[in-house]
Amino acid sequence: MLQKIGIITKRPDQRALQATARLVEWLNQQGKSVTVVEDIAIAAHIPGQQARRQSQDNLPEGMDLVVVIGGDGTFIAAARAVGHRRVPILGVNMGRLGFLTEVPVEEMFATLEKVMQGEFHIEERTTLEVSVIRHELVQNQSRVLNDAVVHKGTLARMMEYNVTIDNQFVFSSRADGLIVATPTGSTAYALSAGGPIIHPALDALLLTPICPHTLTNRPIVVPGAVEISITLTSDDSNRLLTLDGQSGVQLESEDRIVIQRSQYSLLVMHPNTRNYYEILRTKLLWGERAGEVPLVCKP
Amino acid sequence: MLQKIGIITKRPDQRALQATARLVEWLNQQGKSVTVVEDIAIAAHIPGQQARRQSQDNLPEGMDLVVVIGGDGTFIAAARAVGHRRVPILGVNMGRLGFLTEVPVEEMFATLEKVMQGEFHIEERTTLEVSVIRHELVQNQSRVLNDAVVHKGTLARMMEYNVTIDNQFVFSSRADGLIVATPTGSTAYALSAGGPIIHPALDALLLTPICPHTLTNRPIVVPGAVEISITLTSDDSNRLLTLDGQSGVQLESEDRIVIQRSQYSLLVMHPNTRNYYEILRTKLLWGERAGEVPLVCKP
Amino acid sequence: MLQKIGIITKRPDQRALQATARLVEWLNQQGKSVTVVEDIAIAAHIPGQQARRQSQDNLPEGMDLVVVIGGDGTFIAAARAVGHRRVPILGVNMGRLGFLTEVPVEEMFATLEKVMQGEFHIEERTTLEVSVIRHELVQNQSRVLNDAVVHKGTLARMMEYNVTIDNQFVFSSRADGLIVATPTGSTAYALSAGGPIIHPALDALLLTPICPHTLTNRPIVVPGAVEISITLTSDDSNRLLTLDGQSGVQLESEDRIVIQRSQYSLLVMHPNTRNYYEILRTKLLWGERAGEVPLVCKP
Amino acid sequence: MLQKIGIITKRPDQRALQATARLVEWLNQQGKSVTVVEDIAIAAHIPGQQARRQSQDNLPEGMDLVVVIGGDGTFIAAARAVGHRRVPILGVNMGRLGFLTEVPVEEMFATLEKVMQGEFHIEERTTLEVSVIRHELVQNQSRVLNDAVVHKGTLARMMEYNVTIDNQFVFSSRADGLIVATPTGSTAYALSAGGPIIHPALDALLLTPICPHTLTNRPIVVPGAVEISITLTSDDSNRLLTLDGQSGVQLESEDRIVIQRSQYSLLVMHPNTRNYYEILRTKLLWGERAGEVPLVCKP
Repeated sequence: MLQKIGIITKRPDQRALQATARLVEWLNQQGKSVTVVEDIAIAAHIPGQQARRQSQDNLPEGMDLVVVIGGDGTFIAAARAVGHRRVPILGVNMGRLGFLTEVPVEEMFATLEKVMQGEFHIEERTTLEVSVIRHELVQNQSRVLNDAVVHKGTLARMMEYNVTIDNQFVFSSRADGLIVATPTGSTAYALSAGGPIIHPALDALLLTPICPHTLTNRPIVVPGAVEISITLTSDDSNRLLTLDGQSGVQLESEDRIVIQRSQYSLLVMHPNTRNYYEILRTKLLWGERAGEVPLVCKP
Repeated sequence: MLQKIGIITKRPDQRALQATARLVEWLNQQGKSVTVVEDIAIAAHIPGQQARRQSQDNLPEGMDLVVVIGGDGTFIAAARAVGHRRVPILGVNMGRLGFLTEVPVEEMFATLEKVMQGEFHIEERTTLEVSVIRHELVQNQSRVLNDAVVHKGTLARMMEYNVTIDNQFVFSSRADGLIVATPTGSTAYALSAGGPIIHPALDALLLTPICPHTLTNRPIVVPGAVEISITLTSDDSNRLLTLDGQSGVQLESEDRIVIQRSQYSLLVMHPNTRNYYEILRTKLLWGERAGEVPLVCKP
Repeated sequence: MLQKIGIITKRPDQRALQATARLVEWLNQQGKSVTVVEDIAIAAHIPGQQARRQSQDNLPEGMDLVVVIGGDGTFIAAARAVGHRRVPILGVNMGRLGFLTEVPVEEMFATLEKVMQGEFHIEERTTLEVSVIRHELVQNQSRVLNDAVVHKGTLARMMEYNVTIDNQFVFSSRADGLIVATPTGSTAYALSAGGPIIHPALDALLLTPICPHTLTNRPIVVPGAVEISITLTSDDSNRLLTLDGQSGVQLESEDRIVIQRSQYSLLVMHPNTRNYYEILRTKLLWGERAGEVPLVCKP
Repeated sequence: MLQKIGIITKRPDQRALQATARLVEWLNQQGKSVTVVEDIAIAAHIPGQQARRQSQDNLPEGMDLVVVIGGDGTFIAAARAVGHRRVPILGVNMGRLGFLTEVPVEEMFATLEKVMQGEFHIEERTTLEVSVIRHELVQNQSRVLNDAVVHKGTLARMMEYNVTIDNQFVFSSRADGLIVATPTGSTAYALSAGGPIIHPALDALLLTPICPHTLTNRPIVVPGAVEISITLTSDDSNRLLTLDGQSGVQLESEDRIVIQRSQYSLLVMHPNTRNYYEILRTKLLWGERAGEVPLVCKP
């Protein structure tokens, strides 16, 4: 039984905060115990007796479900806070279907009613542990749901790097950057760099070069259990590691970035009414006749 | 003054035939002299005094304007019949915007009223002369508006060929095929094979390989004044030349396909209310938020 | 202990036949029991006492190892004959490194010496079962190592089809064709159609459209355990199913092609001296400076 | 008659400096008047009587030919200094064929001998004028031979921009950046971002998006005579304009970048022994069998 519900909300978004307040009230009526993030509670004028307040990091402790209200960016940030606990997350979008926030806010109550009756399934999504190694020491360690991107700085003309997988040399390359993505991340930045779509149930990692100088360089999909190591080989220190497109780490010459599947996969709750391929079709407009190449038909 | 108007219509399409009948009546009321294709006249029940009847090939003789009612396929077939005469063509679509048939049938009369007042511009579109040379003899000669495609037969595993441009060797390749397109054709088959979009005002030809085996093979844009020669180098006789996607020529070993800009460019009439980039945006859904890669935004 | 050795050879290739004769002699000296395909034995003048003779289909029965001498095409044909038995295959190429035939003929004896001492590893490669369903009846059933390709006939202008995966509708599309590939097949035809490289250890299938008319259509990688079903939706009967690029089945309207991972994976023997990434680098010229885009460097 | 020869050399490169000293001596023997850049003369120990010395910017005044010794980067920098004068440039590479420096240093004297006898042709290469407009004022104006790239800063997650051509709205997009390239630049950065190859004789400009978020966005080739205007539409001020990959301009919100073909085309001298397609083939390894996708052949 889903009894203890946490809510994480897109912060400066008035509509998301209003939806949060309505959701708190509705959950109260259902007799649920509700916890919200401290500053959200204040911003959304949620009375003290309606919901407990905690910092985002403590939110998932003891929760049965965390509802995220906002866009995919909010969901990803929430995943970072929640991901190491075994609590399922359900994403509610504010009007625009997300790959992760698949419930439109108008269907929030109808969906939650079904969910409370058990009409849902839980999917485990791979996350990545990303470490920066400098002079044999771990400088930085992070967990991402979408991708880790190593890329040149704006003024640099390119990045030179080596990739090894499980200590086997894979390739050295010159490019604008390299995206290492989870299947979840395959429909994010990697897609715009020319990568394939990878079904989230697959235990796999995707390496997609950004503007590679060698034209035969191609996206590669490798088993999820490997250790990927990227070593910067040129002198230029103007390079960056970007984590889920949300935070960045300045890199130095000869830094090594080590990426592995995390032991913590993220539990994503899906209502039974939607499926992955339907979201793909909607987001990528596969159903549309427009957007088609107008190939000549017989007259 | 546009006085003598011809009409070419998508043949078995009832709605296009009805639109043709209405257009004949309307043009009669304007005091225009109207000519339609013989079998269209019969199919659309157009009374004899309302319009002259001629075969499609004779239609453009002495015309000031030819209106094409149908889709881009109808337009392209009409271009073949009309293209060698200096008569402008205006394309009317039956509900779905075409790259060539840009006037929706509902706006047909409003547009023609403006056109009769001189509110239009004429664009010259490059067409190609395509010859098949076998044992030093010209076997087949055609004119295309979009593209000439040399490709392997279904059971063949690939095609081997050499390309020379103005007698300079360009490359030999193995691929499913090679598309030689005009700028007009760049938004047709070539686009689905990975080619760029080329503005129709550019005097250029586009070579786009289909599934090339060498990964460094890329689309090439060359000046319009060149002579492109494609020689088949493998033994397999199971290969084809397709012209504007509408007709095909079986090729034999050592056939040479020679492609040059035609001396006849096609005169396309555009109402002043639309422009090329707007059609691109509409056809390729560039305005749509959906179809975007959902890159993660800051939460 | 590897005692019973079978040999399959590229048939009309004199050098491959000579290598076969030498290998038979060498294996005899090692006290191995050798079996070759009947017509190869005759073509290569192998004395009767040196090797048993069997048809290719019966060859692997009771073998400990099958050596394939030729190119990747020979290997793939051999895989069809051998694939349903649990016998490892080792590929020897005649001068050009293959993805599957990774031992150069000059290193054949040195490699086999090591192999006889146990210096090898066996890799399981996914194969696919491909069925054509017509009027609810299975018309044709095949097993492929690389790919099954459903594609339009040469004269057709495109193919319309629906894809479902595990009975969930995925997309309907118009394209030249659709490639369903194993990870092994990802470096074959799918690569030239724009697909990613998939590590052979991954339990996954790859769907790559050929010249899709919708520009947002992209290659998709799905879990290996799914059932993929492709239904032809347009009337045109001019369509084909090609299996491993070696044989074809004419398709009819409303045919359904069902593709699943086979219960038989192929056992590929690798000497310990080579690894997958090294073959990738060599085949795709990743090590080469040439073939690079000459991006401008600071002067 | 080519009498007055200038030399521009890759600065810190010892082999280029040695080649320069040898070239000065050789030209002296031919009775030519030689001018070198001041600091090169010192670095290469060229005696005062052998060559005049001038700053790079003054070098081409009154010259009949400028020889560039180095790589394509040196050539491009030289083009900036020389481009507005009508003096031809000949590029000598130090061992690696460049798209612009096509004479290997070992063939330098043999080539120049032929050149002195008139065995060369001059090609006019389009260059671009790039202006940054801020609050209606021109902030910065530059001329490029390859490309102008507007792109997001490293920490920004994307760039939002509008493109207009000759005051017609073309598209608004979200991407990592946009490359506007000359035909010369089509084989540089634009190629690694997925753009086509454009023959340098074509009067055309190429727009190639970098990692566009809308999957239907494609490279576009437009006539050379247009005015392209790019307006930044998002607030983020972290964006940059990069010129020929060699210098950068920090951009501000609502900056407008205006790009037009320059009135100064660059005169490039080619020996008659080489042609454009041959350089393409060599650089992109089109002649190589390796690098091919190993499509399965019939066994």
